[in-house]
Amino acid sequence: MKYPIIQAGMAGGVTTPKLVAAVSNEGGLGSIGAGYMDAAQLRRHIQEVKKLTKNPFAVNLFTPPVYDASKDKIEKTNSRLQPFRDHLHISETTKIDKLTDSLFLEQIEVIFEEEVSICSFTFGIPSVEIIQRLKSRDIILIGTATTVEEAIANENNDMDMVVMQGSEAGGHRGSFIKPFEDSMIGTMALVPQASDVVTIPVIAAGGIAEGRGLVAALVLGAQAVQMGTAFVTSLESGVIDAYKEAIVNSHEDQTVVTSVFSGKPARGIQNEFISKMMDYEDELPEYPLQNSLTKSIRSEAAKQNITEWMSLWCGQSPRLTKRQSARQTMLELITQVEGLVKRS
Amino acid sequence: MKYPIIQAGMAGGVTTPKLVAAVSNEGGLGSIGAGYMDAAQLRRHIQEVKKLTKNPFAVNLFTPPVYDASKDKIEKTNSRLQPFRDHLHISETTKIDKLTDSLFLEQIEVIFEEEVSICSFTFGIPSVEIIQRLKSRDIILIGTATTVEEAIANENNDMDMVVMQGSEAGGHRGSFIKPFEDSMIGTMALVPQASDVVTIPVIAAGGIAEGRGLVAALVLGAQAVQMGTAFVTSLESGVIDAYKEAIVNSHEDQTVVTSVFSGKPARGIQNEFISKMMDYEDELPEYPLQNSLTKSIRSEAAKQNITEWMSLWCGQSPRLTKRQSARQTMLELITQVEGLVKRS
Repeated sequence: MKYPIIQAGMAGGVTTPKLVAAVSNEGGLGSIGAGYMDAAQLRRHIQEVKKLTKNPFAVNLFTPPVYDASKDKIEKTNSRLQPFRDHLHISETTKIDKLTDSLFLEQIEVIFEEEVSICSFTFGIPSVEIIQRLKSRDIILIGTATTVEEAIANENNDMDMVVMQGSEAGGHRGSFIKPFEDSMIGTMALVPQASDVVTIPVIAAGGIAEGRGLVAALVLGAQAVQMGTAFVTSLESGVIDAYKEAIVNSHEDQTVVTSVFSGKPARGIQNEFISKMMDYEDELPEYPLQNSLTKSIRSEAAKQNITEWMSLWCGQSPRLTKRQSARQTMLELITQVEGLVKRS
Repeated sequence: MKYPIIQAGMAGGVTTPKLVAAVSNEGGLGSIGAGYMDAAQLRRHIQEVKKLTKNPFAVNLFTPPVYDASKDKIEKTNSRLQPFRDHLHISETTKIDKLTDSLFLEQIEVIFEEEVSICSFTFGIPSVEIIQRLKSRDIILIGTATTVEEAIANENNDMDMVVMQGSEAGGHRGSFIKPFEDSMIGTMALVPQASDVVTIPVIAAGGIAEGRGLVAALVLGAQAVQMGTAFVTSLESGVIDAYKEAIVNSHEDQTVVTSVFSGKPARGIQNEFISKMMDYEDELPEYPLQNSLTKSIRSEAAKQNITEWMSLWCGQSPRLTKRQSARQTMLELITQVEGLVKRS
């Protein structure tokens, strides 16, 4: 990597091979958001990225969750979601996706077969056995933490680096030790406190969308930054135009952290689906069950351009985003950093 | 001011003339936390600070709130608080303090009489009339904002500068337009977005406790920083030792934003009083009523060294604080900044 800039591995079709390759080609680190991909999809993505760049890239995986699959909550929520499905003319029966150890193991096999050199994890730390297998192939491992305690756990479990995800970050919270409410630490506070305690490199994430945030994060003790929202709005990202438009037109006080889409807290732009479902937030089935239940609604809403019913993941710096190519975003970042360094 | 460092005007006895003067003497801007002071107390504080420093200092005032004083909530909460009072052997009857326009006007008169040159405000923007009177005497006015919209309101109402209070900040939230939940924006996101929109100088606050945060804030577009928690632990602050000790021993994930102490959301270290009262949070009388109801409990608990029943205001960077003189904190800040600038 020429520049300490990581494009976050955003799952659910946000990252595309073109996006990942564009960031890596400009000297950053692109990441495939592979959390929900099966082996075939992941293999195809990796092979396409390899065709588009000779530079390193990462694959981001979701550490498999432990969850309660009691039928009560599933059925109750299912009936609450039915009006959305009816409105969207969704006829097929909702099926609960398997997001289990077996999917994760499939993904890991593809990592090996395709000789991916960098692998990042969200939602916790993989098992000792998986980590040992990955490390025996010299794969660089990047963990995610939202508190200093989680950063220490990443270091103690042989992660090579750790993304410190501040409360500003868009998308899913990576918290895995304490409840997320206790782990909403602002990037400005999180990065220096984590840098002081762990010896592995710290990567700052949350609220960073351009050069000022990048330099500020390095000053705070980070070795690199990870940016998500700034790349969701890129030409190369896989989301619909209306979603990109919603981000660039949003303000910093228009996002919320909600579990209504997936059963796991995530930051996105406030919309009608959230308003209608938030009263039932305590009764939702856990991640990944709720994610399965809302999946057809979200994808059909995207097809019909109904952003009010989509999960519009977005961090707290939407005013800093632009609709432009990822290459242009990278070039501007580098120009801004050079300007800031010259100024000091 | 030689250095762009403001010591936050923390009310309720946190700031002392010695603290304010120490910061101003080292080239920062000390602030008297005058929110709850009557005219006589404020005059005494100002006169003592003047004896200790020839440099400028500020007075921080609370913009008077509009509140609902319905008896129901007061009586209900009063009875819930009685067990705490019994345990602490508090015999005097609880009286509701007047925190009204008249107190604020008294404070403003003292500002004029004592020729204070800098005045900062929390909890909203004073009336046009007050602002005009202050500006006609060339008093520099500093407002507080938690969103870009609030920053714009400060600029439009003739504030000379605005403190952008990030979600990391300890103590009371300054939000005055939207509910505080919508206004919890991390400093890393808030500062650049506000700097891009307003033309008055922006002062960064929230999570900043030493040189790295100071330089990072300046990179993000701030002209200065305001630090609170870093000075609560100073030798010169007015709080009891056990409170200082609680801060330096806390972690970033051990604070919460709660209204149980004052009726207004504020960030402090989680403790027993919060745990016991948080279930009734929606039924509390508004600020400043709840503040009056809990006042004797908090002050008596402080006298008896019972930190579990005190309001331990603290931001999200307690690991970065030290128990040392404010002068030493200022000297270390300056040394760190010089080191960081040299390194770049």
